[in-house]
Amino acid sequence: MKVVKELSACGGKLIKLSHDSISTKTRMNVNVYLPKQYYAQDFPRDRRIPTVVYLSGLTCTPDNASEKAFWQFQADKYGFAMVFPDTSPRGDKVANDPEGSWDFGQGAGFYVNATQDPYAPHYQMYDYVHKELPQTLDAHFNGNGVAKLDFQDDVAITGHSMGGFGAICGYLKGYAERKYKSCSAFAPIVNPSNVPWGQKAFGGYLGDERTQWQAYDPCALIKNVKHVNDDKILIHVGDADPFLEEHLKPELLLEAVKATSWEDHVQVKKVHGFDHSYYFVSTFVPEHAEFHAKNLGLI
Amino acid sequence: MKVVKELSACGGKLIKLSHDSISTKTRMNVNVYLPKQYYAQDFPRDRRIPTVVYLSGLTCTPDNASEKAFWQFQADKYGFAMVFPDTSPRGDKVANDPEGSWDFGQGAGFYVNATQDPYAPHYQMYDYVHKELPQTLDAHFNGNGVAKLDFQDDVAITGHSMGGFGAICGYLKGYAERKYKSCSAFAPIVNPSNVPWGQKAFGGYLGDERTQWQAYDPCALIKNVKHVNDDKILIHVGDADPFLEEHLKPELLLEAVKATSWEDHVQVKKVHGFDHSYYFVSTFVPEHAEFHAKNLGLI
Repeated sequence: MKVVKELSACGGKLIKLSHDSISTKTRMNVNVYLPKQYYAQDFPRDRRIPTVVYLSGLTCTPDNASEKAFWQFQADKYGFAMVFPDTSPRGDKVANDPEGSWDFGQGAGFYVNATQDPYAPHYQMYDYVHKELPQTLDAHFNGNGVAKLDFQDDVAITGHSMGGFGAICGYLKGYAERKYKSCSAFAPIVNPSNVPWGQKAFGGYLGDERTQWQAYDPCALIKNVKHVNDDKILIHVGDADPFLEEHLKPELLLEAVKATSWEDHVQVKKVHGFDHSYYFVSTFVPEHAEFHAKNLGLI
Repeated sequence: MKVVKELSACGGKLIKLSHDSISTKTRMNVNVYLPKQYYAQDFPRDRRIPTVVYLSGLTCTPDNASEKAFWQFQADKYGFAMVFPDTSPRGDKVANDPEGSWDFGQGAGFYVNATQDPYAPHYQMYDYVHKELPQTLDAHFNGNGVAKLDFQDDVAITGHSMGGFGAICGYLKGYAERKYKSCSAFAPIVNPSNVPWGQKAFGGYLGDERTQWQAYDPCALIKNVKHVNDDKILIHVGDADPFLEEHLKPELLLEAVKATSWEDHVQVKKVHGFDHSYYFVSTFVPEHAEFHAKNLGLI
């Protein structure tokens, strides 16, 4: 793990890192924000700072949300670290969309483990984001005997659009072992099997056999996971989002949880006049930050 | 004036506008943020919402600061509008840097009225930003008899890098008539006549006769303007800013005001570990917002 840059930001530091990933067999970039509490002289030795992982949407790198979502002030307010992973493997040797479009291939890994050639060798983003990266960050930041950061136990997950899908998917797949303590999403794709962005991605990465898609589709997953506590999944979406009707369809998740243990535990807030941009995301980051801070026991 | 897009953002709206400028003889883009107070049903009829103008740095469009500086939450907090102008005229017919570099020409108008060909026909950014744009915004937003926004009287100015220079320059040149009620800057170029970025820009736009440069150089201007009240110019700069030693040199402004009426009225805060990016700007926007809100009588 190499520190590419370390910058003061708000009361803490934004750290740009890169590392060779075992999962993707490529060099991966990731940004981490360490809040002011991490640098406080009087931070208690027996406490660890929890993490909120933010998965970005189509075309994004770790920088988009780091620059535009404005989590840093909230991280300082509540005392959590932020992790901003990349959205796919990248590089000349990594297969890309044959049509060169922006909704598949590099920048659009969809946080799944591809089974189909030519994508399978590098597009192992599920394992990368949910397994390898937390361990690698743990080893890097806590490897010197000063275990102040918690990347593997007290962790919340959130994301935007494709990343909102990735967050809900990872949360549900890890629900039984409480891998993530909290989950929220901004304008997520909730039912990829039934919308064009998801069908293109799942078809390319997972193949034409649609039963294989169920393993990642939130609307399928949530029916097979028993809800066991009081927490809920918090979702915001703008009613001026140009992708709302065709690709996002949050109502499909609400339909999927009807008469299940998740009924009343998925909250979709449709907000007026907001589109799909970071003007939308950043506006509601404070509400999501408070939500995760509560679920992580910080307030 | 054409509304290109109107988006919900924080509690108000971000409005992307474009218009044909008389000064630059080009189509110009500008973003305006109207805070939640503007949309409040109970906003008093006899009050007007003051404005903070933010001038951006080299290479920027109106979108950079709109997306990354995060003024919107502060505008809602105190009740001011934001104006984000472009940094130069643009288009095929607009002369550009012959070397194609990013620190001169399109995206780098330096907020002066060019006197030299081929730049003089379009590069009239001083008149555009400080005269035409406020009048045009006033006519657009207040032309229907509902004068809720103040673009010409209760106005503060700030900016980043080249835009920090532009803000201080405009503030000082309009000081006698109190054109701007408040001025601050993030990592400004304070003495363009004596640093490479400024010398290239002033040489190109204003010609080789250096006496002409004095009309825009803050370190020259400030000696000829008598300070008459208690306000000060607030400046932040990061000590990890890669342009600090060569292009910014804030200490030259402090030297220039020694033994003048401005002594003790220019405050330069050097902050540790911050660079030249929007991670730096956004961190100190809340302090600048409070500073301007006080000077505008909002708190």
